[in-house]
Amino acid sequence: MDLKKRVWEILEVDRPGEPRGKVYDAFDVFILVLIFLNVIAVILGTVKSVEVRFQSALRWFEVFSVAVFTIEYLARLWACASQSRYSHPVFGRLRFMFRPMAMIDLLAVLPFYLTFFTADLRFVRALRLFRLFRVAKLGRYSSSVRLFGRVFRSKREELFVTAMMMLVMIIMSASFMYFAENEAQPDKFPDIPSTVWWSVMTLTTVGYGDVFPVTPLGRALAMLIAILGIGMFALPVGIFGAGFVEEIQKQKTRKTTCPHCGEEIG
Amino acid sequence: MDLKKRVWEILEVDRPGEPRGKVYDAFDVFILVLIFLNVIAVILGTVKSVEVRFQSALRWFEVFSVAVFTIEYLARLWACASQSRYSHPVFGRLRFMFRPMAMIDLLAVLPFYLTFFTADLRFVRALRLFRLFRVAKLGRYSSSVRLFGRVFRSKREELFVTAMMMLVMIIMSASFMYFAENEAQPDKFPDIPSTVWWSVMTLTTVGYGDVFPVTPLGRALAMLIAILGIGMFALPVGIFGAGFVEEIQKQKTRKTTCPHCGEEIG
Amino acid sequence: MDLKKRVWEILEVDRPGEPRGKVYDAFDVFILVLIFLNVIAVILGTVKSVEVRFQSALRWFEVFSVAVFTIEYLARLWACASQSRYSHPVFGRLRFMFRPMAMIDLLAVLPFYLTFFTADLRFVRALRLFRLFRVAKLGRYSSSVRLFGRVFRSKREELFVTAMMMLVMIIMSASFMYFAENEAQPDKFPDIPSTVWWSVMTLTTVGYGDVFPVTPLGRALAMLIAILGIGMFALPVGIFGAGFVEEIQKQKTRKTTCPHCGEEIG
Amino acid sequence: MDLKKRVWEILEVDRPGEPRGKVYDAFDVFILVLIFLNVIAVILGTVKSVEVRFQSALRWFEVFSVAVFTIEYLARLWACASQSRYSHPVFGRLRFMFRPMAMIDLLAVLPFYLTFFTADLRFVRALRLFRLFRVAKLGRYSSSVRLFGRVFRSKREELFVTAMMMLVMIIMSASFMYFAENEAQPDKFPDIPSTVWWSVMTLTTVGYGDVFPVTPLGRALAMLIAILGIGMFALPVGIFGAGFVEEIQKQKTRKTTCPHCGEEIG
Repeated sequence: MDLKKRVWEILEVDRPGEPRGKVYDAFDVFILVLIFLNVIAVILGTVKSVEVRFQSALRWFEVFSVAVFTIEYLARLWACASQSRYSHPVFGRLRFMFRPMAMIDLLAVLPFYLTFFTADLRFVRALRLFRLFRVAKLGRYSSSVRLFGRVFRSKREELFVTAMMMLVMIIMSASFMYFAENEAQPDKFPDIPSTVWWSVMTLTTVGYGDVFPVTPLGRALAMLIAILGIGMFALPVGIFGAGFVEEIQKQKTRKTTCPHCGEEIG
Repeated sequence: MDLKKRVWEILEVDRPGEPRGKVYDAFDVFILVLIFLNVIAVILGTVKSVEVRFQSALRWFEVFSVAVFTIEYLARLWACASQSRYSHPVFGRLRFMFRPMAMIDLLAVLPFYLTFFTADLRFVRALRLFRLFRVAKLGRYSSSVRLFGRVFRSKREELFVTAMMMLVMIIMSASFMYFAENEAQPDKFPDIPSTVWWSVMTLTTVGYGDVFPVTPLGRALAMLIAILGIGMFALPVGIFGAGFVEEIQKQKTRKTTCPHCGEEIG
Repeated sequence: MDLKKRVWEILEVDRPGEPRGKVYDAFDVFILVLIFLNVIAVILGTVKSVEVRFQSALRWFEVFSVAVFTIEYLARLWACASQSRYSHPVFGRLRFMFRPMAMIDLLAVLPFYLTFFTADLRFVRALRLFRLFRVAKLGRYSSSVRLFGRVFRSKREELFVTAMMMLVMIIMSASFMYFAENEAQPDKFPDIPSTVWWSVMTLTTVGYGDVFPVTPLGRALAMLIAILGIGMFALPVGIFGAGFVEEIQKQKTRKTTCPHCGEEIG
Repeated sequence: MDLKKRVWEILEVDRPGEPRGKVYDAFDVFILVLIFLNVIAVILGTVKSVEVRFQSALRWFEVFSVAVFTIEYLARLWACASQSRYSHPVFGRLRFMFRPMAMIDLLAVLPFYLTFFTADLRFVRALRLFRLFRVAKLGRYSSSVRLFGRVFRSKREELFVTAMMMLVMIIMSASFMYFAENEAQPDKFPDIPSTVWWSVMTLTTVGYGDVFPVTPLGRALAMLIAILGIGMFALPVGIFGAGFVEEIQKQKTRKTTCPHCGEEIG
């Protein structure tokens, strides 16, 4: 087995349930631990007392992490040519780069290099958190995550329609509330885009209480909207519940055989 | 094919899943884009900075939209006589006008003409948002929307009973809370209709925090009501969930065969 | 048919789905309309402007309603002896009086007579709202209400256990929160019974925002409690959903026969 | 039957559905009542007016309770050696002590003895509430609790994955919100760990309203997070619902027969 192929197999974890050998597992664990430490570093780095005391340590840890992630990314980019799908030296690699997973990996290192070109460190530091998404790769080990994925895919259209209905509900309720309350509270409901804030916070039943209607018409509308908001919970919950029930029944009917005569049932 | 029939077929989209030809689709897309631009125009028109800069553009766009919608509405009204259901020149057309979909189309243009008779532009502008409901026509293309419709229809009675139970719960909790809190907070719980606002906001778990009980009896009642409010979520969610499971099972059993004689059961 | 039996049949509506004749239905509708008008009278009677203007009208309507309800109650009490279950002149009638439905009817009139003995009109007026519960009798006409009843009964034990778990959760979270926050906010968390208010309002996700923890330990606890609160929704919703699915499947398997050969399936 | 075995049988309630005789039941009821009185004592002991008046009574009740619980714990520790699993005089007893149920029993008495060594009575008193967990033992009598346990165990992995997704969602939303709002409200969003408080209270839809974003970017993020928060309800509810449906179907199919050979399956 040539080096390219070997590197590919160490770096890409895509055969769930198969034994991979110690070297592979050790590498996986190392990368995972690094990701978690990175996220903790970003979080603690925002706490003033921690930042003051450990500034240089955090900086060096960042440099080390980015070095590891960059080498890993480049190694994977180099090794991907061993696969027939990405075999073309240029276009195959570009194709590999545009896979969602590879995009996340790039987003995990790019912010660091951007700090040499931009002064807006705030935005760049936020981007570093995308490293957490790399944890999603772990999902392929878990049958539950695959079950969630199947349910989500099979109910894709229903969830999309629900999302559209929510969007229409948010826009309609914000618009009507604006026309009801704008005169009474021009500072809290100045225009429809601002009223969307109230609309979402009421439909999701968060209800901070920073903005709420005071006119009788506005209150009547808000009550109607809050009750309709229950539908925003009922639909996705009902869809997910039915999806789980369906998946479970599929798995059962896939291969039930009678233990007595051995023939397949249902 | 005469012109009336041709116009009818272009304007009315009621054969889901069938190819309609390029002219028809282009017209659909044009009307849809116009609806969305209208909604965006209404929303942005309320933002002061936008209104000041683009006042005349928004006005001309409104005139253009209304012209298109009016012509479309009249064309449809004229063409509907080609269908046997609406064949009578006067009563057939009146019957067409009172279909819910045709009512929405009328509501989409009428506000504009009302501006010539009334000075209350605020209310008229709000009515323009009804144009968004025209998007509902898209629903007939989607099998998910039809599934939602079936679930909703088959659970119609259960949902109505749930709505009645909610109404009784809202009235009862508002009334008891009024008698518990009115003396302690006469400005926040002045009468039962005003307490309904607190009642709905607590039962839907929105909880703005602008009104809440302070007496021990009021607090005990509120805790009971908040816990009962969970039932307001549990019932509709359970009903929808069961409805989805049922629909899925119906679709499956559509092609099952009787184990006794082997024939298919509808 | 003697008079007693006839009166009983007019007053007691307990044969759903059977035709009852015009006299019976007219009486039902009359009592129902009276109940709704009573509830509206109680609600509007609390609005000051209404009370001032219509005080005597409301008073006379109350006297009239109580007269009707009292006569109806006494007539039913007199007529119940025609049934074998309540045939004993004294004990049969006492037994009838202690049925839940008869208790509600008594509660609907008793408050009025109490006003002659007590000066606490406030409490007495609140009791008048119990008349709304008489609407529950309508439920026996609806198959959905009977379905809800069946689901509720079949899941009785699960719902009781859920209620017990909620109670333990409320007490435990209130107690721990008291020990975490009492020192920092002695006015907001003065003792455990007062902290129960915070506990319920957080677990039900109402979140008024009048009381919330400020110490790091209190906040950590509150976050844990809020997340556990999701379980307070998940359990009853899941139980109801499963109950509805179960009932629907029961109804199906009750009497499915193959339409081709006529034999029973399942 | 020797004394050790007899004591074991009185103290350990682990054969649900079996008759145990009057002595055993009386002992169970006595311990249960004592637990409930203890919890009530802890709760009322925090109310100032009660504490002042009944201080010595509460103190003596505490001493009495701890004496009973200690004797019961020691008796059980002594008697457990009668069981083959814990037969070793030292290691068997240690093994018994580390069972979760035995740990709870120890936690129920230990706090009292700690008061002789520590001055932090506040923390010690909080620990006394762990006595309430002893009520969990009752659960083994209830078939519903066993059903909940089965559903929970069968959906263990799905619930764990959901918990992980929630954790990632909480961390990500807190981090992004920190970068969006820190500059505008440095006192409310001082660092990411503090922003987690906002994040949890929004995702669980509690929404106290003590902290909320004010910048357009922060508000847009918050709306997205609040809508995603619905998923935090939808997933566990859907999982539990499907779990209950599955368990019910399992119980039914327990006695189904294979349609090919006629023998029972499962």
